[in-house]
Amino acid sequence: MNEEKVWKELEERLSSYQAIETALTLLEWDSATLAPKKADQKTARMVGILSEMSFQALINDDVRKLKDKLAKKGTELSKIQRAVLRELERQYAKLEGIPPEEYRAFSELKATANRIWSDAKEAGSFDAFAPALEKIVEYQKKFADYRRKANPGKSRYDILLSDYEPEFDCEKLDEFFGLIKQELVPFIHQIIPKARMVDKTYNGHIFDVEKQKRFCEFLAEYTGFDRDRGVFSESAHPFTTNLHNEDVRITNHFQRNQLESAIFSVIHETGHAVYELQIADDLTQTLVGVGASMAMHESQSRFYENIMGRSREFWKPIYGKLQETFPEALSEVSLDAFIKGINRPEFSMIRTEADELTYPLHILVRYEIEKELMDGSLSVCQIPEVWNKKYKEYLGGEPKDDAEGALQDVHWSGGEFGYFPSYALGSAIAAQLYETIRQEIPFTMYLEEGNIEKIKKYLGEHIHRYGAVKGTNQLLKEVTGEEFSPRYYIEYLKRKYTKLYDSKQ
Amino acid sequence: MNEEKVWKELEERLSSYQAIETALTLLEWDSATLAPKKADQKTARMVGILSEMSFQALINDDVRKLKDKLAKKGTELSKIQRAVLRELERQYAKLEGIPPEEYRAFSELKATANRIWSDAKEAGSFDAFAPALEKIVEYQKKFADYRRKANPGKSRYDILLSDYEPEFDCEKLDEFFGLIKQELVPFIHQIIPKARMVDKTYNGHIFDVEKQKRFCEFLAEYTGFDRDRGVFSESAHPFTTNLHNEDVRITNHFQRNQLESAIFSVIHETGHAVYELQIADDLTQTLVGVGASMAMHESQSRFYENIMGRSREFWKPIYGKLQETFPEALSEVSLDAFIKGINRPEFSMIRTEADELTYPLHILVRYEIEKELMDGSLSVCQIPEVWNKKYKEYLGGEPKDDAEGALQDVHWSGGEFGYFPSYALGSAIAAQLYETIRQEIPFTMYLEEGNIEKIKKYLGEHIHRYGAVKGTNQLLKEVTGEEFSPRYYIEYLKRKYTKLYDSKQ
Repeated sequence: MNEEKVWKELEERLSSYQAIETALTLLEWDSATLAPKKADQKTARMVGILSEMSFQALINDDVRKLKDKLAKKGTELSKIQRAVLRELERQYAKLEGIPPEEYRAFSELKATANRIWSDAKEAGSFDAFAPALEKIVEYQKKFADYRRKANPGKSRYDILLSDYEPEFDCEKLDEFFGLIKQELVPFIHQIIPKARMVDKTYNGHIFDVEKQKRFCEFLAEYTGFDRDRGVFSESAHPFTTNLHNEDVRITNHFQRNQLESAIFSVIHETGHAVYELQIADDLTQTLVGVGASMAMHESQSRFYENIMGRSREFWKPIYGKLQETFPEALSEVSLDAFIKGINRPEFSMIRTEADELTYPLHILVRYEIEKELMDGSLSVCQIPEVWNKKYKEYLGGEPKDDAEGALQDVHWSGGEFGYFPSYALGSAIAAQLYETIRQEIPFTMYLEEGNIEKIKKYLGEHIHRYGAVKGTNQLLKEVTGEEFSPRYYIEYLKRKYTKLYDSKQ
Repeated sequence: MNEEKVWKELEERLSSYQAIETALTLLEWDSATLAPKKADQKTARMVGILSEMSFQALINDDVRKLKDKLAKKGTELSKIQRAVLRELERQYAKLEGIPPEEYRAFSELKATANRIWSDAKEAGSFDAFAPALEKIVEYQKKFADYRRKANPGKSRYDILLSDYEPEFDCEKLDEFFGLIKQELVPFIHQIIPKARMVDKTYNGHIFDVEKQKRFCEFLAEYTGFDRDRGVFSESAHPFTTNLHNEDVRITNHFQRNQLESAIFSVIHETGHAVYELQIADDLTQTLVGVGASMAMHESQSRFYENIMGRSREFWKPIYGKLQETFPEALSEVSLDAFIKGINRPEFSMIRTEADELTYPLHILVRYEIEKELMDGSLSVCQIPEVWNKKYKEYLGGEPKDDAEGALQDVHWSGGEFGYFPSYALGSAIAAQLYETIRQEIPFTMYLEEGNIEKIKKYLGEHIHRYGAVKGTNQLLKEVTGEEFSPRYYIEYLKRKYTKLYDSKQ
């Protein structure tokens, strides 16, 4: 068989995998946004079966032979082909050692855990979630152990991290969070008292949910969401997902008694969505039709949410519209007061509503807990106690209950241990990219003109269109001239918050 | 291998088929209710691949051997097992002769045709739909020909009919429609002039869509829809679908300038939904976890819509609520006037909005066209002309454009040739069942008490819970004492409409 034929055959095999994964994505979306509450058990059974089929479509002797044949071709292959093979190797490293029936049982378990978690959160009872979480943790430890056979030098948590960040491990993350502690924590303690006098009572008004929805849809479209290729919905936790680059979906959640959560969630999710919408046509529906890494993905959402979305220039052309939508709350609030308000740093309990400055401390709590959970030094039932202790230490207070504490995030119910660090890395990457972008294009002018399209285009051309063909560091090197470097993040935050709250003006 | 082991292995194989079919059901639902308009092409590719996988999961040497082994066991098997084997044989008869890659291409085509149809309908242009429809017709003719090899005595249309109605063929349908023409058409011509004076101007008011939605959700729940196991949505054509008996979904459509369409659609769809909700737990997610036939399914929706939903007794306890919801239109309309209005027979152009009496004539038009399409005596481009001619002949008028004519129904875009007769058969079955039900339970009392639960329970116990374990005639025999007999339908319609419009009172 010649090379081209082998490739065609592999592509055909991978299409089957892709088709099942597309179905699973839709099932997951549906379950989080629409499915009736009693549907879970029976649907989960089907999800388990489909997950095993997806596993088998990838991990089998035929695909293995095709992959190994092509791997020998090296530079004769195109860049995309090599990237697909690299992703396939990653999937093999991840899955090959796991018995398919265990993978199925775990997938079925995860498909029911989301509702168990959200019910437990509503009831504020960690105990109601603990049994399911224990099972999930056991599976993840077992799966990581299977994989450690080929990588005896790595910890379980290193293994799980590599699913989201192939270019990071605990050593690098310890270094990163070390810098945060050393550089940022003293700065935070210096800024917060100064910001305390900033008035943001506007955020505590009653905001009609229908009006919030309409404004958030406007914001999404204003920042580049394409309704002909996208869908809005609602869920307990806002998220973005996609079937391919012409079907990208974002959710939001709305609370009557506050405005900022929905606004910054939708800008954040639109950042993710724009990434997926701009992945090239010849990559979508392949193994590399995804982001370069979760950190790179989060860099785009955090760039949208914070660097763009919390800037004065961004709001200048549209703040009037927001005031008109909610005159009772905002007609007396000036643009400058609003900008100070949406950037007021404070020690708070909820990650998704945290300001940009204290945000990495929320991640730090989770990072430390996940590491201990995975190395076995912490058991599931101890989580709330440790959680509260760490919040006290890093964020100066304790949650009033588990709903505000260890139950606040959806991730663990989906087995996503090792994901949280990507948020902090993403924020740092966003700052590093920003340093280049503001030199390369008239960024503030585009914002003031309401010309987000141009910024979206820049990100599309330099990052999004490549999908996962290029890795995180390669992209950073090409765009910014150097690999990942957290110092831009520290500098950016210090500069921004000094200007906002510590300047003499 | 002993019998039980063989059965377990077959069950495991069929679960894979079931899981893919569940995914395809969700993809189809999503595409009709939510997916963005540019998503179709890329999603359809995945649907094609999944459809071929579903085909292969059923049609393969392993399943064939298991099936044949079990078929020899005969009476040693349970009733359910025998029914599953019977359904499996039907699937084999349907699919075995089709090359899998053609099945995939056809499935991919169908997944894009729905939007082509709805765009064409919006534009009122049959020409815009014709090329896709031609391809669909060609596939269906070719597939029917593959199947005729084993059934040389059957026509193509007989073959297609058997997918929906295994117990009916053209001979029986010709007889059925012959009776309609002979008995019902003269009666219709006698009644319509008498009903002409009935005032139903109330239906032409402006009805706030949000209020319609809320009232329709009330109606669905009032008649037995369970929100914890179901979902409401909207689509161009109302329909019901389900993933299993704890996830049943209905759609509706709303027009500002009329009320009846949404109201009777939701009652109709709830009839379907209640059937699926009451299929027994040990049948759902198996090959027999479906209705006994499409006619039996439509009998339940038509029973709900017409026999229950257009009766005076049904509206007695809830008409006040409808009046309160739409006082401008209804406060001056008495219950009796409303009942006469919703039952006013007339020659009209749209099947889904047709009254109960003229309804079978709409089906007759489609039945005759489909037969000719399949035997090759009619080509796709001739459809509008023949359609209009037949409407003129049977329903006394011609549609003003193709949107009101040959483009009005969704079915052909999904390749569903042979489905329409099930609506008429279903109406007849509903009347036959009604004849027994009104003797067995205090039907009108339950309606007047708002006790639909009792009626739902009767239908559940006698029909729904059996899924497709029992066939249509077997169920009819057990419930009514005889197999399908259309005379109850004729009698029911004559009795009802004589009472409404031809009595001296």
